[in-house]
Formats: sequence, C-alpha cells, structure tokens
Amino acid sequence: MSLSMNRRAVEILNRMSDQASALGISVSTLKNGTRLVDLGVKVPGGLLAGKGLAEICLGGLGEVSFLPLDYGDFSFSGISVAIDGPVLPCLGSQYAGWRVHRGKFFGMGSGPARALARTEELYETIRIQDDADSAVLVLESGRLPDEEVAEYVAEKCGVNPDRVSLAVAATRSVAGAVQIAARSVETAMHKLFELDFDVTKTLTGFGTCPIATPSADDLTAIGRTNDCVLYGSKVYLTVSSTDDEIAALIDKIPSCASRDYGQLFRDLFKRYDGDFYKIDPFLFSPAKIAITNAASGRTFRAGRFNAELLQTSLLS
Amino acid sequence: MSLSMNRRAVEILNRMSDQASALGISVSTLKNGTRLVDLGVKVPGGLLAGKGLAEICLGGLGEVSFLPLDYGDFSFSGISVAIDGPVLPCLGSQYAGWRVHRGKFFGMGSGPARALARTEELYETIRIQDDADSAVLVLESGRLPDEEVAEYVAEKCGVNPDRVSLAVAATRSVAGAVQIAARSVETAMHKLFELDFDVTKTLTGFGTCPIATPSADDLTAIGRTNDCVLYGSKVYLTVSSTDDEIAALIDKIPSCASRDYGQLFRDLFKRYDGDFYKIDPFLFSPAKIAITNAASGRTFRAGRFNAELLQTSLLS
Amino acid sequence: MSLSMNRRAVEILNRMSDQASALGISVSTLKNGTRLVDLGVKVPGGLLAGKGLAEICLGGLGEVSFLPLDYGDFSFSGISVAIDGPVLPCLGSQYAGWRVHRGKFFGMGSGPARALARTEELYETIRIQDDADSAVLVLESGRLPDEEVAEYVAEKCGVNPDRVSLAVAATRSVAGAVQIAARSVETAMHKLFELDFDVTKTLTGFGTCPIATPSADDLTAIGRTNDCVLYGSKVYLTVSSTDDEIAALIDKIPSCASRDYGQLFRDLFKRYDGDFYKIDPFLFSPAKIAITNAASGRTFRAGRFNAELLQTSLLS
Repeated sequence: MSLSMNRRAVEILNRMSDQASALGISVSTLKNGTRLVDLGVKVPGGLLAGKGLAEICLGGLGEVSFLPLDYGDFSFSGISVAIDGPVLPCLGSQYAGWRVHRGKFFGMGSGPARALARTEELYETIRIQDDADSAVLVLESGRLPDEEVAEYVAEKCGVNPDRVSLAVAATRSVAGAVQIAARSVETAMHKLFELDFDVTKTLTGFGTCPIATPSADDLTAIGRTNDCVLYGSKVYLTVSSTDDEIAALIDKIPSCASRDYGQLFRDLFKRYDGDFYKIDPFLFSPAKIAITNAASGRTFRAGRFNAELLQTSLLS
Repeated sequence: MSLSMNRRAVEILNRMSDQASALGISVSTLKNGTRLVDLGVKVPGGLLAGKGLAEICLGGLGEVSFLPLDYGDFSFSGISVAIDGPVLPCLGSQYAGWRVHRGKFFGMGSGPARALARTEELYETIRIQDDADSAVLVLESGRLPDEEVAEYVAEKCGVNPDRVSLAVAATRSVAGAVQIAARSVETAMHKLFELDFDVTKTLTGFGTCPIATPSADDLTAIGRTNDCVLYGSKVYLTVSSTDDEIAALIDKIPSCASRDYGQLFRDLFKRYDGDFYKIDPFLFSPAKIAITNAASGRTFRAGRFNAELLQTSLLS
Repeated sequence: MSLSMNRRAVEILNRMSDQASALGISVSTLKNGTRLVDLGVKVPGGLLAGKGLAEICLGGLGEVSFLPLDYGDFSFSGISVAIDGPVLPCLGSQYAGWRVHRGKFFGMGSGPARALARTEELYETIRIQDDADSAVLVLESGRLPDEEVAEYVAEKCGVNPDRVSLAVAATRSVAGAVQIAARSVETAMHKLFELDFDVTKTLTGFGTCPIATPSADDLTAIGRTNDCVLYGSKVYLTVSSTDDEIAALIDKIPSCASRDYGQLFRDLFKRYDGDFYKIDPFLFSPAKIAITNAASGRTFRAGRFNAELLQTSLLS
C-alpha cells in the first residue's frame, strides 16, 4: 500500500466487496461506472461493515476495535481508535466536511475523496497530496446517490466516474453509528483546528466512544450519535508544542466548554430548527481530553463524562 | 470467501494448520482422509488456538478479541465477540447442539458442519443453505475421535470423509475455555429461541465473557466454563421487533430468571446426577442482557453479574 | 510461517517496511547490507509502529492490542498481550537481555536475534532452536547503530551482515513506550526465572500495561516506562506445577515485594547514580499477578496497583 489514502481505502473497499453478503452490504455499479456500496440504507449492514467503513474514513491509516465501555450503572458497546499523525487521516479524510447536495440527494461527505476534491477551506491549512486516480467518498445519508452525484464527485476529484466509489450508510444504521463512534479523535482534532492550534503538531491519537443504539427515526439517530461523542467519548493526544499553548486552550476543548452543553443533542437540534449551523460549533468535541506535550512531558486534562445524559439519550 | 460458513471455517483451519507448532496444536490425517486437529486433548493448545477455534465455531462470521474484564475486587482475562446477523453464525453454527456419540467417543458438536448435517430440530426454524462440499465440526471432548466418528459426520453432512475436518478441544483445555467464553451472544440467541422469539429479527450482537481458569478435572471445568457465562457474561443485541414482544420476555432472558440460578454450576450438575438435561434449560443464559429495538429505538435491560459466585468458582 | 521467531519477525518487518511512510518509520541499508529500521530515533514513529515493534520483539508469537486502562480518577491508553508458551517469545526473544555496546553506540537488545546469538546465561536454561539464516534485533536506544554494531550482531548471530535487520526506537519515542508496555507478561516471566521457578511449566500469559506518556528527556522516559510496569501492569499466567511451589513464591512476584518499591523509578535511578544494576533486580515485576495452576485448578494472586505513583509519574 502506498501512502495515498484513496488507494488504501480502495483496497479496503475491495476486500469488503468480496465479503458483501457476509457483511450485509450491497455493491452495485451506476450507469457511469461508479461503484456504489450500500452499507446501511436499503441493507442491514452491521457492526463489521461499520468497522470497515470507519477504516475507509481514515484512509486506511488507523486501527479500529470494538470494546465495552462502562459508565457506572450501565455500559455500551464502543469503538476505540489508534491513529498516528492524525492530521492526515482525521482532518484530511475522516472529517465530514463535504456537504454533497445534488438534486434530491443530500449527504455529509467524508473519507479520502475529500483530499482530492479539496473543496473545503480547511485544505488551505492542511498540506496534503494524494496522487491517486481513484476516489473513495463516504456519504452519511438516508438515500442512495445517483449518477448525478457520482459525476459531481468525479469532477471535483478530477477522476473518471468509473474510478469513483461511493460508500453510503444512514446515520440511523448500525454501520453509520459505528463509523461515527470512530470519530472521537477526529472530533478533538477538528476542535483544535477551530481553536487555531497548529494541528500539524499532533503526533498520535487514541480515543474511545460508545456506539449509539439504533433509532427509529433520523432525528433521534442524529441526537444519539452526537450525544455519544459529546457525553461519552474520551481522547488521548500527544503533541509537540509549548506548555503555554496547550494550557491556554485545554479547558476550551471538551464539549462541556460550549454554551450549548448539557442537553440532549436532539432537543438542541430542534431548538435551532434543525439547523446544524446555528449550533455552537465549539460544542462538537469529546467529553474528555488528555493532551501530553512530548516536548515537555507534561499532560493537560479537561472535561468529564455525562453518564446521566448518555443514559437518557441511548437507553430511553 | 463465500458466505458458506464451512468454506470460511476451512480457510481459517488451513491458516491455523500452517501455524500448528506456533499454536501448540496438532494436525493429522485419519485413515479415511479426515483431517483431525487437536487443539487441547493431547496437546497444550492455548489462547490463540482458542481464538481461532472460536472463529471457526462462528463459521468465520464474527470478530473475536481478548480483553480484561473487571468485577470489582478481581478481574479475569476475557473474550469479546462482535457478530452481525447472529442467527446464522450463532445458532446455525456455533451452538453446541449436535451430540456426537460413536463407540467410546462422546463430544458436543458445534461449528458449521451442523448446518450441513441438520440433524437438529432447530434447523426446522432456521433457514440456512450451505453448498460447501467440505465440513468442519468442532468437538468439545476429552478424547480424540476416530474413523468411525469421522465417517458418521461425513455421512450426516453428505460429504466424503476426506472433506471432513474435526477440530477437538477438551472443556478443561485453554482453547476449550476460550471458545466457550466466545459463546456469550450465542447463549443469548439460544435463550431467545427457547423463549419462542423470532430470532431472525436479530440484527447484531456484541458480548463479553471471562475465560474460565484451567481446571484439574472435567467436572470443575464444566462448572467454571458455565459459571463464566451464567454469572459473568454480558450481551448487547439489536433486533427489529415490537416493544411489547421484547418487554414480555426481557426479564426471562438472563440466567437469574432460572429456578436453578444462584449456585455453582458444578454443584448443580452433581445435584442432577451429572445429567445436563435435568437442569433447567432456561438457566443457560448470559448474566446481563440489553436489547435495543431498532424499530422503536427503545432499549430493554435485565440481569446482573454475580461476582461472588464467579470468584468462588474461578479463583478457589 | 515457520516456528523460527527470526523468520516470523522478518516477515512482520517486511510488511512494516512496505508501509514505512504510513507508519512514520524510516528504512535504510547500511554499507554492509544490514537493514536499519528507525521507528523512533530521528523519525516520529507512532502507536502502530510500536505495536509492530512489540510483535517483532515477541518473534511473531503473540497478539498485541490497544485498550484504555482505568485507575480510578484517571485512565491511560494501554497495551494488552496474549501469549502462549511464553518462555520462547518472552524470555527467548522479548526480554531485553543483550547489552549491545560498540564504539559510541549503546542499546538494550531484544527480539529473536538473541536466540541466535545466545550470549546470555539465560540460554543455558531455556532450550531454544532457531535455524533461521537471518536475524532481527530490536534496540532500545536514542542513537542509530552503524556498520560496526551490525557486524558485531551478525557475527554473534552467525549470519551475514546483509541478513541482519536492526529495528531501533528510543525509550522516549512513542514506539519505544508501546513496545515496553507490551512487556507485562515478559516481566512476570523473567521474575519467575529469577525466583528459580521452572519457567517451562508456564502455559499461557495475558497482561495489560499503560503506555507511558512521552517525555522530554531520557531519564523521565526511563522512569515512566518502568513506572507503568511496576505500578500499573497486571498479568494472568497459567502454569502446570504444584500448588506448594506457587504458594511459596507468589508473594515475591509483584513489584511491591521489592525493597525498592514505592518511589518513582526516576528518583530511584538517580539515587543509584543511574546504574540499573544497583537497583534491586526483584523490583522489575508487574504490579499485580494471578497464577492459575492448571494441575490443580487453584489460582494464586498477589500485588496491587499504585494509582498515586502512576499519576505522579505520568501526568505531572
């Protein structure tokens, strides 16, 4: 495997396609040759499909594992991730920063295709080079994309439509919940980016997050997957920086630093009329964070779990 | 790999056979060509052999991992499993439902060969199709099977004896204890089946269970491996059903719902004169269960760990 | 793969070399043809490089995983290992018993090359045979070795310099910290060896240990990596022995049995003028140990975590 996150993602998706029936996923080809992989829209998908999807989101640069997570009186199945040099896999690929809106289709785009399209401002800061002639885009959507979407993605990525793979799972699907639970480190990285920390100073990331229990409707699913990160995730980063720089922002990192902290995400979302962009962008953070500065050896910590909200969100 | 659980199991067993000395297992060929793999009868076997055996039991459809499990004052090494569409791997393959009794040999048969033989009533309910021309049977036994056993299995599975693989580990072996600890989700699935729940409604399973510490005799080993499940295992299922249906049976699922709950399995077994079939069949269940209904988003929970009995069983 | 730990390690190192840029490691060839892999001297390395390094240390005979480890008020990322027949992988390979001192270079040597060189007294007790014509040595050092070191290693191992691979990571690097955290079982095995227990009676080992947070200087790194083992690791062994034999030494195994227990390793190291060999050799042990005697089924336990010292060491 080369360092190209798209090529790595293609290899993972090829292996998963060979196992399609075992993984409960469906692989088809659009008229223009684009590969469409449904991991949780019209198919059941599942935990292992979600794990593969998470690895694709990371451009093949991270290790994803299942584990139980305890919060006192109750516990959930969860996901841990171990990631080196998290700027590239987390911000360059995994972050769901590409809003793909074409005709009736809408989905949040993540995965290595973003690093080819570079439609987002973020890429002015992150230096990334991917010379792949194929693109893998992960779409969080309750609808399957069509040729129009595929051609738009192909054009933005500068590859032929028959070199595009679209991997799709609804937020409320099991695979969708798993790939979101694998975003603990990414969420911390993006918060650091928003706080104007030089994210290229980040060396490693390890994180855990509960997997949202399945929901009957999209709104609850959006609520639960976010509550898992905001109230139940924990991230350990190592960086090479100055203590002052970290001390100045550590308390701003966890979700509890936000003005919108402390309520079910579903309620918050409704309060802001279902408009993500009205929600305090600083809310999107792990519950707990520990950052070790390799240059000094000091560790800075902030945040806390909110077991009560987690329980209310996931179990009621 | 195809979806055939037998073909998947053959591939896993092939890889393990290539590593036989590293895994502490022994591979031989019976006179009729049957492959005999000893993972814990006359050989030491071990943790990694047990993990492979657990994957074979699941027909290659599940992820098996080691992890530590804490119960307050003490902890054990344990096994987690992540399984999609658990009917096929857990009930169609992993459940030890085939009593193989031939001459002096007796062993509980599990693994994908069961889905070819279909000698059990359970297969009237579970729709399963495996077109493999090879069969892999896992036998929990303190004795190695001979040609007579192999031919019986071959005949029942409708394959030639030289297409049969028999993988054997005693209950008291390390590999035996590991493959039993991987049965948390299977035990929950079988209990649901016994409670007349339509198990095909089950979407995913995740579970943890301690690995029984090794025993000096078979009776203690049978006791400990069962105590691990009954008093120390936890299972998270997602299903697509009605809340009423789940609410009606959730309290019946965990082991504590049984009239035979609350004593060492070894003592219980002795009390019933060593006859498994006199023990309340509803006892065989995980200690804790959480079921989320994907159709409603509601989660139902029941059961509890019994740390005291676990400690008495495993550590004294 | 054969049972040769060197051949297994070569295969792992080949796979890692193919992924060098993704793993943050650097692969080069010395003038005499020796392969030099830098995983944490002049390069960043990382968590996954460290995991691979740990697998190499074990001669490919063990499973290494990331997991979070809780100690009450705080938690760390950690490493679990599952190892069968731990004498060979842990003492025959992983133990850092080869002091490699050549010119300006000094490093503690571990990994399967030790089993070819057999320069240590320990090999009079451990029966081991490795017929590989290639050697893999892991060096914990803040300096990269040169041709002189390579030729010395080649000569001692009885192979050509171009069949030698040297994998190097500093104690203070992330990969260095990870491979040390993978030594929980090895430390227990070596303590048993020092206590004159017949280590060939050991059947399996499972252990956990926190990964030391990165340090700004070597002394702190040495302190933290040792504190992780001494105050935060836990090991579960199974052996086949007599209860009397285990009962007689169980209380001597954990680190708390040492006269030098109870202070930061860094302070201890300074007190003894930086001379490892003045420190009580019985200090080097896991914090907690549980040994099950498979011949009797009894489990013996000793030791305790020291969360306060762990916190002081890793987080301040």
